[in-house]
Amino acid sequence: MQLFDYFRSSASYRVRIALRLKGLDCEQVGVNLLKSEHKAEPHLARNPQGFVPALALDSGEILTQSLAIIEYLDEVYPQTPLLPKDAVGRARVRALAQIIACDIHPVDNLRVLKYITSEFGVSEAQKTTWYQHWIEEGFAAFETRLAEKSTGAFCHGDNPSLADLCLVPQVFNAQRFNVDLSPFPRLMAIYQRCEMLDTFKLARPEHQPDAI
Amino acid sequence: MQLFDYFRSSASYRVRIALRLKGLDCEQVGVNLLKSEHKAEPHLARNPQGFVPALALDSGEILTQSLAIIEYLDEVYPQTPLLPKDAVGRARVRALAQIIACDIHPVDNLRVLKYITSEFGVSEAQKTTWYQHWIEEGFAAFETRLAEKSTGAFCHGDNPSLADLCLVPQVFNAQRFNVDLSPFPRLMAIYQRCEMLDTFKLARPEHQPDAI
Repeated sequence: MQLFDYFRSSASYRVRIALRLKGLDCEQVGVNLLKSEHKAEPHLARNPQGFVPALALDSGEILTQSLAIIEYLDEVYPQTPLLPKDAVGRARVRALAQIIACDIHPVDNLRVLKYITSEFGVSEAQKTTWYQHWIEEGFAAFETRLAEKSTGAFCHGDNPSLADLCLVPQVFNAQRFNVDLSPFPRLMAIYQRCEMLDTFKLARPEHQPDAI
Repeated sequence: MQLFDYFRSSASYRVRIALRLKGLDCEQVGVNLLKSEHKAEPHLARNPQGFVPALALDSGEILTQSLAIIEYLDEVYPQTPLLPKDAVGRARVRALAQIIACDIHPVDNLRVLKYITSEFGVSEAQKTTWYQHWIEEGFAAFETRLAEKSTGAFCHGDNPSLADLCLVPQVFNAQRFNVDLSPFPRLMAIYQRCEMLDTFKLARPEHQPDAI
């Protein structure tokens, strides 16, 4: 397998954690977003959205969208499952993941930040407020849900799941943009527990081959 | 089961199609977004994000996030499956669904439109351009992917899947906001095929009990 990614992409970061948790070998190929490599061939042939990550399977198929890739890995490589066995638990983990992957991350994506700067002429300060706002709103709901009884040492029970894989890169981004994380103690306790695991640590942006 | 929804919510619309395709009985309870009912109790107790849809199970559990709800329904009620049997096909259907559910819909969500109006002071024309822009960008990638050989009468093969459930409400929105859909002939052919089915038609906003 080959993972086309970018060290700072948090969607790629989720997939990197999944690959490490499952102990899968995967060659990483950097797609430099700053050089707009994602908007040119050969990357557009891999993913017409021009986004990373894209996972090329040995069969030649190319998978896109981080959540879809992680569900694929979980189905094909069932070791270290990333979703619980019961349907209600699976729905909870997917919903937690989607709070981040649908309702925070896409609104704070680079292409959106570029749009509000170029089309609406917003200042750096307004851009930072925007970025922080969507994280704070999503994290507040996430924190409330972590009070539910199915939360354990991790977001769902005592093993990392798809929800933790989404949470950790989003906290990383929140820290980069100086979001005040003190209102989210449950969320941060889980983040810190994840960060003690080598599988999560080695997936961090600064440890990737294309990190600058 | 009880579905807390709003007739115009496209995330709710996806779930309504899934319930109809599976032939499931479900009471619909309108949460009036214009009256801000989603931001008050009792809805916040159902979903701290304040979003619709939320699906209350007979067991008392409440599920949130439309994609997580649909995957739950597909696991528990396997009739009329909404995902293909093979892992690569499942990854493709989920990725198509996520182009819409992650990369178009959340950026065009009401809360985001309100933010750019109140905080950035954008005009009605700028708001419409924003709305159309994210649909056009996402639909262009979606259209390209529909050239893949696994596309059939519907987005994946010859039966509706999770991808079609996301596509139809997004086209509905695109039409409301006067997006030029002529660049997307494959996507529109599938939309029209879906719209010939009663299951899709009856889930349309204007046919819901809370429609105004």
